[in-house]
Amino acid sequence: MKSLPYKDILHTKQFARADLEMIFETARDMEKIISWESPGKLLDGKIMASLFYEPSTRTRLSFESAMKRLGGEVITVSDGEMSSLSKWESLEDNAIINAMYSDILVMRHPESGSVEQTAGVVKTPVINAGDGANQHPTQALLDVYTILKERKTLDHLHIAIVWDLKYGRTTHSLVFLMWLFEWVSFSFISPEELKMPQKVIDFVEEKKIPHLETADYSEGIKQADVLYVTRMQRERFTDMSEYDRLKDDYILNLSILEWAEKSNITIMHPLPRVNEVAKEVDALPNAAFFRQAENGVPIRMALLYLLLHENR
Amino acid sequence: MKSLPYKDILHTKQFARADLEMIFETARDMEKIISWESPGKLLDGKIMASLFYEPSTRTRLSFESAMKRLGGEVITVSDGEMSSLSKWESLEDNAIINAMYSDILVMRHPESGSVEQTAGVVKTPVINAGDGANQHPTQALLDVYTILKERKTLDHLHIAIVWDLKYGRTTHSLVFLMWLFEWVSFSFISPEELKMPQKVIDFVEEKKIPHLETADYSEGIKQADVLYVTRMQRERFTDMSEYDRLKDDYILNLSILEWAEKSNITIMHPLPRVNEVAKEVDALPNAAFFRQAENGVPIRMALLYLLLHENR
Amino acid sequence: MKSLPYKDILHTKQFARADLEMIFETARDMEKIISWESPGKLLDGKIMASLFYEPSTRTRLSFESAMKRLGGEVITVSDGEMSSLSKWESLEDNAIINAMYSDILVMRHPESGSVEQTAGVVKTPVINAGDGANQHPTQALLDVYTILKERKTLDHLHIAIVWDLKYGRTTHSLVFLMWLFEWVSFSFISPEELKMPQKVIDFVEEKKIPHLETADYSEGIKQADVLYVTRMQRERFTDMSEYDRLKDDYILNLSILEWAEKSNITIMHPLPRVNEVAKEVDALPNAAFFRQAENGVPIRMALLYLLLHENR
Repeated sequence: MKSLPYKDILHTKQFARADLEMIFETARDMEKIISWESPGKLLDGKIMASLFYEPSTRTRLSFESAMKRLGGEVITVSDGEMSSLSKWESLEDNAIINAMYSDILVMRHPESGSVEQTAGVVKTPVINAGDGANQHPTQALLDVYTILKERKTLDHLHIAIVWDLKYGRTTHSLVFLMWLFEWVSFSFISPEELKMPQKVIDFVEEKKIPHLETADYSEGIKQADVLYVTRMQRERFTDMSEYDRLKDDYILNLSILEWAEKSNITIMHPLPRVNEVAKEVDALPNAAFFRQAENGVPIRMALLYLLLHENR
Repeated sequence: MKSLPYKDILHTKQFARADLEMIFETARDMEKIISWESPGKLLDGKIMASLFYEPSTRTRLSFESAMKRLGGEVITVSDGEMSSLSKWESLEDNAIINAMYSDILVMRHPESGSVEQTAGVVKTPVINAGDGANQHPTQALLDVYTILKERKTLDHLHIAIVWDLKYGRTTHSLVFLMWLFEWVSFSFISPEELKMPQKVIDFVEEKKIPHLETADYSEGIKQADVLYVTRMQRERFTDMSEYDRLKDDYILNLSILEWAEKSNITIMHPLPRVNEVAKEVDALPNAAFFRQAENGVPIRMALLYLLLHENR
Repeated sequence: MKSLPYKDILHTKQFARADLEMIFETARDMEKIISWESPGKLLDGKIMASLFYEPSTRTRLSFESAMKRLGGEVITVSDGEMSSLSKWESLEDNAIINAMYSDILVMRHPESGSVEQTAGVVKTPVINAGDGANQHPTQALLDVYTILKERKTLDHLHIAIVWDLKYGRTTHSLVFLMWLFEWVSFSFISPEELKMPQKVIDFVEEKKIPHLETADYSEGIKQADVLYVTRMQRERFTDMSEYDRLKDDYILNLSILEWAEKSNITIMHPLPRVNEVAKEVDALPNAAFFRQAENGVPIRMALLYLLLHENR
């Protein structure tokens, strides 16, 4: 029976190519459960604690749906509900207690490192559902899984990433994970203020990954197989006038795609979107962002299954 | 196998008499599941998304209980939990994503028309659990189902509706649904300020339904088989002195019932009540308001079953 | 089949010694379900309403986990979610309605007596999960169960209770329950301001239970088999300077234990802790407070099972 060589899912750098292949193969099997071709009781009787100490309704529902599709049960803590007591309890004590109520912890927390700290004190598997600006590995996995499903391969791809490269942690994770495959190359498209941070540039240079930095949207996507659009995170700006000046540039619409002659580029977006992708794009067969969101459930089912089925 | 000729439950005007008969017959079967006479796993493996973007604990618990009595699973969004992201995401994008996590959406939302808009963009069935001041069709269905169970018929009934006819959407729905049955007639009892709105009066006049408008409680109930008392919606008033002046009139108590010689009139109320029905009334065998609330679960089970059992 | 001679769990004084023995024996069986030695579907199809009108995430998760380990279902109301309507609805009406959605009510509420009032108007079993400063009987049961598991007996024990004896309702419950066993004796250790209230002192004097009141930590624990440390409830103090003056005294650490020559005293704490028990104590084999928290699940499973299995 397949299993991963670690107890927890904490950050994107923990994955080897073989791990990703196992997770994606398992996700394919999970899609058969979702479409009722296979029975769904693989985690019958198991309990997942869904601990969202920071609100993220979408990620929470995706994990809870995944667990329930597998026949498992869920207990939930969602935002605002943290009692006054818990506020000053140590993260470690809290982790030990939560692990008593469940077989796996899925945790989102505003502080970087908090999920890793939790995983360190409990025997129960822990999945990071986002710890502050730090890591959100299941988003990264579903992004790469989407590329695989849309392009039928993960090798020899050129990926353009656009917009908010400075604050968009999903774009950094995508670079780290795609490096595991052969002959990947990148275009990083952004205004000066939102350029890819130096640590990511250092990484691609060290690994000798071909890459282009540009502010020109249509130039950036000219060679791309995949276009990964990110959201303008309004809440990251301290200077609102800078936000207002930038927010209407870089709207992906049919004209840009025509101009760049990119009729079959795979268009992705982690969602929710504001106005970075015009509604007219939705109808294109290569607009993959809703399928991308849908891939979140089988990927999370695969992780829950791989981490839990053995300790049954 | 029985099924409804539409995918969604959105407003009371969508129902034909035959639809109501099918729903009520199915609700009777559902009562056997609640009392453990029949097995309850009819929706085993199905997931309902319980999306309460406006708080309504009672309606939410009633739907969630209904789904669980059928062996189904529930994922929940309750008030206050909407993350900052979702606030500016389009209703359509949000609908498409929520439909990926579940097999049916039950949705309450403060904006009129929002649930219908959601239903228009997803293939998943959608049930309206209240959209602002607009529609709350499952409340209307359980009201009519209660009249059927209490009176053993839906034809030849005189229904008195009392109190807040202006803002009480349940009273308007009741008029529209009861019109589907034979020889219905109404008394509308209210102070001048809270009279039935013109659109409902126009409707009963167009359909030539006998009706009486009066401010006199005991006169109004003299001929009635059913008395439907509504709650004073404090939150609807802008002028609190008007509220204070009115709130103690029209309290239903034993004296009024004696005065009007109505010992076997069926007394209904959508609950919660404030003080419109005195506690001394509760013990009467014809005080049906708690049984009415109880009918919410089989009615919602019937709808969930009728909308979901086929796409299994 | 075993059953308790009452419908509800409301306060610690309702238990006879035989009741406790039945509950603890059932809890032992429940531990086999948690460890997968026995099947866990004993309450399949039953619904628990988890009504937390005051936030207490930990108690809520413990009850919900217990119900799910038994194969039962849960519907949840957690803090802040109470709709504006419910605020002015009578507790009795609310209770009657909630009972329609479920087979058992687990209720926490800020007002003393509210849970008992609820139990009085419904046929459904009700478990008190804490009503204000009044009662929290399942905490008391898991405390005594922990003593039994750690010491292999409940007779002939000397129990030291330390710190906040004035406001800590768990300490009062412990005295009332331990009195049911043979030859119990107590040390009450606290600063003058936080002494055991007169009603508890009156009780132990009336029952002729040997007891010592002292402000000296190491003197107090010298004869003890069990040390029950309580949390400084910051929220109980009106005078913060008093809180600040007291909060750093009475920290249990290795020096105190060595000084008192108590290497095998069973150390308990209802958790969460602030700083009353130093982290260095955690590694001791006789530090029982995490095992104590873990005992909450089988105890709550036992109560749910004993109250529900018969009306199936």
